[in-house]
Amino acid sequence: MRIIVDAFGGDNAPLEIIKGCELAVKAHDVDILLVGKEETIRKVAAENKISLDRMEILDAPDVIAMEDHPNLIRTEKKNCSLAVAMRALAEGKGDGFVGAGNTGATLFGATTIVGRIKGVKRPALAPVMPKMEGKFILCDSGANADCRPEMLVQFGKMASIYAERVLGVNNPRVGLANVGTEDTKGDALRTETFPLMKESGLNFIGNIEARDIPYDACDVVVADGFTGNVILKLYEGVAGALIKKIKGVLTASGKNKIAALMIKKDMKKMAKQLDHNEQGGAPFLGVVKPVFKAHGSSQAKTVSNAIGQVKAFVTAGVIEAIAESVK
Amino acid sequence: MRIIVDAFGGDNAPLEIIKGCELAVKAHDVDILLVGKEETIRKVAAENKISLDRMEILDAPDVIAMEDHPNLIRTEKKNCSLAVAMRALAEGKGDGFVGAGNTGATLFGATTIVGRIKGVKRPALAPVMPKMEGKFILCDSGANADCRPEMLVQFGKMASIYAERVLGVNNPRVGLANVGTEDTKGDALRTETFPLMKESGLNFIGNIEARDIPYDACDVVVADGFTGNVILKLYEGVAGALIKKIKGVLTASGKNKIAALMIKKDMKKMAKQLDHNEQGGAPFLGVVKPVFKAHGSSQAKTVSNAIGQVKAFVTAGVIEAIAESVK
Repeated sequence: MRIIVDAFGGDNAPLEIIKGCELAVKAHDVDILLVGKEETIRKVAAENKISLDRMEILDAPDVIAMEDHPNLIRTEKKNCSLAVAMRALAEGKGDGFVGAGNTGATLFGATTIVGRIKGVKRPALAPVMPKMEGKFILCDSGANADCRPEMLVQFGKMASIYAERVLGVNNPRVGLANVGTEDTKGDALRTETFPLMKESGLNFIGNIEARDIPYDACDVVVADGFTGNVILKLYEGVAGALIKKIKGVLTASGKNKIAALMIKKDMKKMAKQLDHNEQGGAPFLGVVKPVFKAHGSSQAKTVSNAIGQVKAFVTAGVIEAIAESVK
Repeated sequence: MRIIVDAFGGDNAPLEIIKGCELAVKAHDVDILLVGKEETIRKVAAENKISLDRMEILDAPDVIAMEDHPNLIRTEKKNCSLAVAMRALAEGKGDGFVGAGNTGATLFGATTIVGRIKGVKRPALAPVMPKMEGKFILCDSGANADCRPEMLVQFGKMASIYAERVLGVNNPRVGLANVGTEDTKGDALRTETFPLMKESGLNFIGNIEARDIPYDACDVVVADGFTGNVILKLYEGVAGALIKKIKGVLTASGKNKIAALMIKKDMKKMAKQLDHNEQGGAPFLGVVKPVFKAHGSSQAKTVSNAIGQVKAFVTAGVIEAIAESVK
């Protein structure tokens, strides 16, 4: 299997990306097509003693910035690493894609260059998120700010297939993110979506409150992309702020510092379970080929994990199953 | 000053409510009008040795449940403690109201029995929330699931006045909860609201991402009631789940338990800053009299704090200032 990787996407590109590919070759037994300025890639690899074994380089002279407008990848920046990588994916030069760059541009490229699965209204971003015990999938977490009820039902279908085939959750419980658990709760979008979810054939367990998401509310949380993005980022923000607060307590005095040493190992284990770097990347579900977005701040480990996720996604036949479900 | 309190609202009513009133009489130097079944109130007070000094009781035979439909307070349950309390407030039998019961019914009563300030489109719920250092106001946090852009601008105005006059924040920074910081980010509601916020005369600092809310993003977070409610509840959910995780670490072994004892005092101080019971209640801004909603799980301390907030709200002339600003 060969994974196409944008070597120039994300805050830590290209070094951490190339390192991540080196890790992935060994950890996941894959070949890599690295896309970006060939000269720079070879120089960075040589300087950092990174082996480019099982990696091929596809030269791309340009780079799209995190803040650039997405449609630049089809106009002025059509030769940026992201656009070149997307075309390579569309042309079958690899089995899937991983990038840590501009999210909007990745979605735009996935939709317009790679293409949607027939019957899919809109691709949706579906990260795997940590909860008290285990994980859940949040879909859509930011691809579509404005949604119609039928889109939300499709997000539930696509994410259920992903949860079942890749996370190994049997008959995933699907919940609609809402402001209360009663059937009639919510805004116009939610009250229109609820009956459609009930008839969808999904294992729909009803509305779920944001308060219950971090516990074991369900396996798939369905949201419009605006609400999903707020959930995704607030999750990260509140957890990060609280951990910072606790670090403050643990370094507040000499006595506290000793206590911190005593619980260090167990705290690290807990932090690891919550770390988004451990999750790797998130797929845009509904695209005809696997397109995975890794966090902009991805380290080598994250990139390698995301590449492993693409392999699992391909092996599990998620795309074929989605195509079948939306026929 | 006399505060009207629903003795039968919330999960811990009437005991914790009556206890809270006893605390408030001393802590905030106020008189109380307790509304609910007089016989039960007197019995509970006697059994628990609670002094009813400076409290008067207004008998109300019925109770509205947390899950009851709000409009019952004007039909079958028009003699529930909440409805009787709202009528008493409208008739001037007290200077403000505190209740920990059914949120929808409290809003419905506030709007239809007590009434809106002239010019206010919709009252909005505005809790004070903790951040890394200090506090911010989230408005609307759940009163209006579907909103128009002008409503969001008014939420910003009302909450700014509250932040300035009660929290003592000079020229409060107002942010629009959104999925990115760029001016053009978001769904239709956000992109239409943004220019109106810019022209509003508020100290509008632009869009803020959910990730930054727990840090020092701004003093007033403006959201539609659906998004605001998701933020409010996810804040509580993520913080609660993480604290539970940490408690797990601190009790995982004998060594960890010793470490826990060493940091106990500082951890408690931190937890206190984050505890919603410390915040008291949240006002429905835009109502002609102060109507405060306390958390359903309120303890005596919460009720007393909420009563103190009503006093501060009245003293600061928040309602008069809002009336002036929406003229």
